[in-house]
Amino acid sequence: MALIDLINAKKVGQELSTAQLQEFAAFAADKATPDYQLAALLMAIRINGMSPSETADLTLVMAQTGDMLKPEVGGIPVDKHSTGGVGDTTTLILAPLVAACGGKVVKMSGRGLGHTGGTIDKLESIPGFKTELPEEDFLRIAREVGCCVVGQSGELAPADKRLYSLRDVTGTVDSIPLIASSIMSKKLAGGAMGIVLDVKLGSGALMKTMEDCMRLARAMCDIGRRSGREMAALITAMDEPLGSHVGNALEVKEAIDMLAGRVQGPLMEVALQLGAQMLLLSDLATDEAQALEMLKKALNDGSGLKKFRQMIKAQGGDGRVCEDTSLLPTTKHTTALKAPRDGYLARINTEQAGMAAQALGAGRLTKEDAIDPGAGYVLYKRIGDRVRKGEDIALLHHNKDVKRGLDLLSSALEFFDTAPQTMPLIRARIAPDGKES
Amino acid sequence: MALIDLINAKKVGQELSTAQLQEFAAFAADKATPDYQLAALLMAIRINGMSPSETADLTLVMAQTGDMLKPEVGGIPVDKHSTGGVGDTTTLILAPLVAACGGKVVKMSGRGLGHTGGTIDKLESIPGFKTELPEEDFLRIAREVGCCVVGQSGELAPADKRLYSLRDVTGTVDSIPLIASSIMSKKLAGGAMGIVLDVKLGSGALMKTMEDCMRLARAMCDIGRRSGREMAALITAMDEPLGSHVGNALEVKEAIDMLAGRVQGPLMEVALQLGAQMLLLSDLATDEAQALEMLKKALNDGSGLKKFRQMIKAQGGDGRVCEDTSLLPTTKHTTALKAPRDGYLARINTEQAGMAAQALGAGRLTKEDAIDPGAGYVLYKRIGDRVRKGEDIALLHHNKDVKRGLDLLSSALEFFDTAPQTMPLIRARIAPDGKES
Repeated sequence: MALIDLINAKKVGQELSTAQLQEFAAFAADKATPDYQLAALLMAIRINGMSPSETADLTLVMAQTGDMLKPEVGGIPVDKHSTGGVGDTTTLILAPLVAACGGKVVKMSGRGLGHTGGTIDKLESIPGFKTELPEEDFLRIAREVGCCVVGQSGELAPADKRLYSLRDVTGTVDSIPLIASSIMSKKLAGGAMGIVLDVKLGSGALMKTMEDCMRLARAMCDIGRRSGREMAALITAMDEPLGSHVGNALEVKEAIDMLAGRVQGPLMEVALQLGAQMLLLSDLATDEAQALEMLKKALNDGSGLKKFRQMIKAQGGDGRVCEDTSLLPTTKHTTALKAPRDGYLARINTEQAGMAAQALGAGRLTKEDAIDPGAGYVLYKRIGDRVRKGEDIALLHHNKDVKRGLDLLSSALEFFDTAPQTMPLIRARIAPDGKES
Repeated sequence: MALIDLINAKKVGQELSTAQLQEFAAFAADKATPDYQLAALLMAIRINGMSPSETADLTLVMAQTGDMLKPEVGGIPVDKHSTGGVGDTTTLILAPLVAACGGKVVKMSGRGLGHTGGTIDKLESIPGFKTELPEEDFLRIAREVGCCVVGQSGELAPADKRLYSLRDVTGTVDSIPLIASSIMSKKLAGGAMGIVLDVKLGSGALMKTMEDCMRLARAMCDIGRRSGREMAALITAMDEPLGSHVGNALEVKEAIDMLAGRVQGPLMEVALQLGAQMLLLSDLATDEAQALEMLKKALNDGSGLKKFRQMIKAQGGDGRVCEDTSLLPTTKHTTALKAPRDGYLARINTEQAGMAAQALGAGRLTKEDAIDPGAGYVLYKRIGDRVRKGEDIALLHHNKDVKRGLDLLSSALEFFDTAPQTMPLIRARIAPDGKES
């Protein structure tokens, strides 16, 4: 079978067979395959779509172009995936809490690119923390500590790696079958048997409508179940940064503050809801209420923070940050952003708020960029909060010139005279049994 | 404007503006533009289509990425384009006949690829004939002799050249806007003010349905008229090889035999009909009947053959071939194909018949292949002709092993017990005034 035959089939809207998709994945993983043929096929898929079974098939065959891990961790290996947001540090909170409840979190994470942060970048801001570990160490830590978070190995789903890098430059990112199969191919290869999805909705999210979020969540759950994985999904709000801290070390600090019980907030709420799903998929709780109780206990008795310290130490990091967050990297300068008027914080262009952190040095424009681990900002206000003209509403942490970051953040915030309607944090869910609510 | 913006617009079916198409053409002509982005945009165009004005705009801006000739040839420069067939030697017949009637034929032709022959390859089988001439010689010969046929210069429509080579390998050949704009961009750049199109229909043609042929013909006429060119089009049959001779020198021989009045047939009929349209577009005749009379006179009084000899000599070739076709290249071997049964020749897979000639050495599989100028075959029978088992129905000319060519040709021919219905040669026309009949 030649790749051109697959292109010709898909361009007229034909469904590709499993055998044809296997060929496609093999071509994508083969460096000799020309980019232009893959680009043409990606565009045909973007426009003509893929059926659920086609999408599930593509995912599995892409996963199978590389290593398929089978983590033996003394329990059901569970993972969580977020479609990416700003100030979204749920992994650093839920992984230790779930581990403290007996769960086994095996998590492979990505680096940040564009306006969203990456868990790996956040963890690397902890002095000494290693995110590249041999597979045996990764699994041993997951088994012994209960959670381990590493970067994605190049040997996972190489077909997806090739296609993912092409999609960005060929206008084929916004395709639910391609998004779903890309995410899930790495999850299937990673070997988690229970996978919780956090699909973000709002101005800082890839998906801008509830309908698209549900389509993506359903597509990913469907893919996972067809490969024998237990799945659950939440659609959560990304109308504003989830935590108040945006930036790598700043977000680690916020996670520690929350695990230590010093701070509450929407970030913790979302982390608990996602963590509860992970406990359900781990067969450690029989219902959501019980799962939430277990997580809250691990939070209140300090066992969550203890797990985080253990994980940091196991991965080579300085565990003392859990007691003293001043050991985390900082910046030379801080600059306050003042409220431009009296009123209510009404709307945030969250993608732009993410770009503001990037402009301060917290993120990358290209994969090769270095990041400044201490850079970012703390936003003191959430949507619906009242502000007084001249009041400090954010504090920017920076080493480089602050102007562009300040401009981006300040123009990302909109103020109204009257209090805006606020929306619930958890917008919808797909339970492990497939029920939607 | 970035190319990705154009891709994103076209993938959701937006019409591209003239300015956007200009950017597209500039990107296509720029070697630094990655193939994968052009491939993605081509696929988006293939699937989502282009409006008539978009197609016309794209054509003109592609033409303008290279030289735009303005041939001063002492009359209206006219050209003819065929979408490609087997045994289709009309150019070699009509160009001298139109020249003999006072027309100025400025023709840039392609080489053969796949199952169709190329006029340039045919002419190069004449000893000494040059198809690469400096522009001034090309125009001088067109002016003095009345016809000149050269290969396409690399400086004509470089944007199209790039896209054309990508379309073949990305499944984006079968798009009427892309076919029409590709053909017409070279014609607009070539500077002909009157252009006659020969759109082939049938088993040896790119277009397999009348509807597609008319859509393509209309699209090309529309493009030409929007750039101030006079246009006419014929839809002609390609259910079987047009001439009885298939192969380069063999087709030159047939053209000379026809110009000398020794041979008649459908090839001559189509050449006369196309030539008549060219005389109309040249303002040398007021109606088709008059144009046909003029051409027949040039045929009967030998002035057409004389023009052909003049053109051959002007282009460095041995003009004596016009009196003695045995000066053309031949092959060491000939092999007869015998009728496998009694009956009627009922159907021909003409594409496969073209591949048979290619297999004998007359054509190329890749652009780099050399061709054998003497190779090919003469088919003694046309659809509807009665055959007797064991009778010679074709003579194959070859230097290389004949088996594959013989197999392809013999399996391309189908015989029935009863006479098949035959179809008219000229299936439809779009007259210079746009009337369809």
